[in-house]
Amino acid sequence: MLKRAPYAFFVYILLLTCQLNAQNTDSLILRRFFTEALSNPVAYHNLNFLCTHIGGRLCGSNKAEEAVNWAEKLLMSMNPDTVYLQPVMVEHWERGFKETARITSSKTGLQELSVCALGSSVGTGPQGINAEVVEVHNFLELQDLGRKNIEGKIVFFNRAADPTPIYTFEAYGGAVDQRAFGAMQAARYGATAVIVRSATLAHDNYPHTGIQHYADSVKAIPALSVSTNDADTLSSRLKKDPNLKLFILTSCATHPESVSHNVIAEIKGTEHPNEVIAFGGHIDSWDIGQGAHDDGAGVVQTIEVLRLFKALGIKPRHTLRVIVFMDEEYAQRGAKAYAESAKQESNSIPAIHHLAAIESDRGGFTPQGFSIDAPDSIVKIIHSWQPLLQPYGLWSIAKGGSGVDIRDLKPQGVPLIALVSDSQRYFDYQHAASDTFDKVHPRELQLGSAAIAALVFLIDKYGL
Amino acid sequence: MLKRAPYAFFVYILLLTCQLNAQNTDSLILRRFFTEALSNPVAYHNLNFLCTHIGGRLCGSNKAEEAVNWAEKLLMSMNPDTVYLQPVMVEHWERGFKETARITSSKTGLQELSVCALGSSVGTGPQGINAEVVEVHNFLELQDLGRKNIEGKIVFFNRAADPTPIYTFEAYGGAVDQRAFGAMQAARYGATAVIVRSATLAHDNYPHTGIQHYADSVKAIPALSVSTNDADTLSSRLKKDPNLKLFILTSCATHPESVSHNVIAEIKGTEHPNEVIAFGGHIDSWDIGQGAHDDGAGVVQTIEVLRLFKALGIKPRHTLRVIVFMDEEYAQRGAKAYAESAKQESNSIPAIHHLAAIESDRGGFTPQGFSIDAPDSIVKIIHSWQPLLQPYGLWSIAKGGSGVDIRDLKPQGVPLIALVSDSQRYFDYQHAASDTFDKVHPRELQLGSAAIAALVFLIDKYGL
Repeated sequence: MLKRAPYAFFVYILLLTCQLNAQNTDSLILRRFFTEALSNPVAYHNLNFLCTHIGGRLCGSNKAEEAVNWAEKLLMSMNPDTVYLQPVMVEHWERGFKETARITSSKTGLQELSVCALGSSVGTGPQGINAEVVEVHNFLELQDLGRKNIEGKIVFFNRAADPTPIYTFEAYGGAVDQRAFGAMQAARYGATAVIVRSATLAHDNYPHTGIQHYADSVKAIPALSVSTNDADTLSSRLKKDPNLKLFILTSCATHPESVSHNVIAEIKGTEHPNEVIAFGGHIDSWDIGQGAHDDGAGVVQTIEVLRLFKALGIKPRHTLRVIVFMDEEYAQRGAKAYAESAKQESNSIPAIHHLAAIESDRGGFTPQGFSIDAPDSIVKIIHSWQPLLQPYGLWSIAKGGSGVDIRDLKPQGVPLIALVSDSQRYFDYQHAASDTFDKVHPRELQLGSAAIAALVFLIDKYGL
Repeated sequence: MLKRAPYAFFVYILLLTCQLNAQNTDSLILRRFFTEALSNPVAYHNLNFLCTHIGGRLCGSNKAEEAVNWAEKLLMSMNPDTVYLQPVMVEHWERGFKETARITSSKTGLQELSVCALGSSVGTGPQGINAEVVEVHNFLELQDLGRKNIEGKIVFFNRAADPTPIYTFEAYGGAVDQRAFGAMQAARYGATAVIVRSATLAHDNYPHTGIQHYADSVKAIPALSVSTNDADTLSSRLKKDPNLKLFILTSCATHPESVSHNVIAEIKGTEHPNEVIAFGGHIDSWDIGQGAHDDGAGVVQTIEVLRLFKALGIKPRHTLRVIVFMDEEYAQRGAKAYAESAKQESNSIPAIHHLAAIESDRGGFTPQGFSIDAPDSIVKIIHSWQPLLQPYGLWSIAKGGSGVDIRDLKPQGVPLIALVSDSQRYFDYQHAASDTFDKVHPRELQLGSAAIAALVFLIDKYGL
């Protein structure tokens, strides 16, 4: 052994040098991704077009189809190896005319409230609904009040989001049940409609929409969202006059399903063309804003990843696939269609497998890291890249949830990863008319593009 | 030894339990700081008053005195053990009427530019200056051009800030020499005035002011800032017509010095009243905005630290001292006066020492950590608290620069610490008319308050 020591030492130094060189090379390449993204804010300009020339684009709408065409053309202009459309049957709900909600009270006078219908809600009919209001804060209160106190009334869900979690998605998660299931629950006790405090931490006049669900077993009643300021107004008016009435008028309608598409583009891998690193965001958005942070940002960031690889002249070993998902907001039909096709691919000959799937759908704010839904061994690998990623503010690399558009790949064993961004401002805008292009900062958005590109590069180079 | 093992094991377990309990207690207290700050955004409401009722407050102005009175009253209302004013002699520069800069060219036509005078600049006189323009990008180009190409002309410094650093203070640092020393350097070659591209990464129409310096040995010539958009305009016009003229008109004036004040408040330490943990921001701001991020944010955040300690009922072991600094922007007279008084305190009987000084002057954005200008041993102690701070996004705890208002304490051996915030948006607003209250997010600001309170708590408990 002693005689071999100098040789072993030499090999050790050689290996160490190689490893250090690899790290140096990696850090240089990561630096180039960020330099390119910050010097040429192409994703930002793409988002400008999507938001200000197309705008809100709920699945089933003409605007959504415009956006699909735009994404397809944009991807083709980047000269990837392939661009194709994946058919997705989507529902088509329409808000109708601007909603009305008006307090009518002999004691406290008339008061218009800032409201909007929740997604999938039925309309009130042309006469509207004029009824007393009962304020509750959770489903248990509904149960305690019982049918005798609720029947024929409008149930007002007014539980505020908790301001104390640092990561605001927790606050949202703790408040959104009222929106998602309020109408279904209130209808069980004979309510005539529901009006729900917006699931946001902002105190302002914007009502926030979002999907809500009916149950087949109970009557579908109209469901509205009210701005946080006007939720406070309604609550304080109710204290002065518990018998006040609320008049609501909406004209929502659901149309037959139609064909829409996911848009998919690929750069084929040079060594492992049948192993796919997938990444994407969703092109559909709610109708009342421009879908800038939710999720125009994720779409342009993940499209930008292709551009960054091309700009740097990096030919990936594995196939890079960007997916522009249709219908995240309404029924996740695009996610389901994609997961189904991924399953078929994995059973085809040759089999095509996913090495990882990455989603960007937490707003185009300063990126802070990645949340990984995968076995610990894979989390450990990604975490080992933290020294390379941390100079770009990507400190937080940890096990956690991923995203709605990729989670259906989980049963297939695909490691799922979400880009995590600074969440403080996200729910100020999510699902509201205020989710517009001017709320997106070019550098914050571009840093997110480069963050995803950096992660894709490391997965492509080292595997998982 | 074997006989003693059970005893030693018992002591080990006891010590481990105590240590874990201390950590648990600390993490509970930190959680309470953040819960209080996020539930009651008092700093945010204070900033609203400072920005919208008082507004821009350059040292020497009536507005600056209004702000000093406001800070004193606000601090007194919080019932600390003492509030006092520390006299500071300040200069008093006034911008005068709205500045004019107009391209006059027979080839490219008239064009107004968005400009503002730089701080300390002389005025142009009532006739203004009408002269040809020579564009340069650094002082070396000035030297190469020489007096024959510069004399009698307006020098246009047009080096853009580098968009590639992740931390934007680096970009600012790489561009700001043009603003600070451009007039002084150009005057050496006989320039008649300078116009300087704003030191910002934003592409917009806001000129950014800031201090500039003359040298006694050269003529004081007018110095203006131009918005980045109009710097591009001027540059492209110059390409079409190198002989175009620029007409500039400003009416800046410098008035006699006057007395202003730092405002200081303390909660006396229960165990070490003569050891001070100091923290502060600066109350003065440039005149053209509201001084919201620079540095109203730092002032209200550090005042909030006192409120948080009071709200949580924590009596500090060491004296907590908040300093509302006067005149950071113009000549750092407040910082100098404070450093001088600290020196006197340390030589008094009993001697009063600084345990640490913390500054918040990097904008009221999401806090990311602390930058520490102190010996490695102290950096190591603060870094050891990272597990407690990281749940609040305070990942980055590292050796680095501190801040302009506390750096004069360095020769006295005081450990200096700066709150580090997300820098992406800071230079969009710094020193511009756009630095207004609406650019500050309540949660981002309040997180910063709690971050400083958490650090102060740990320093107070464990020392440095």
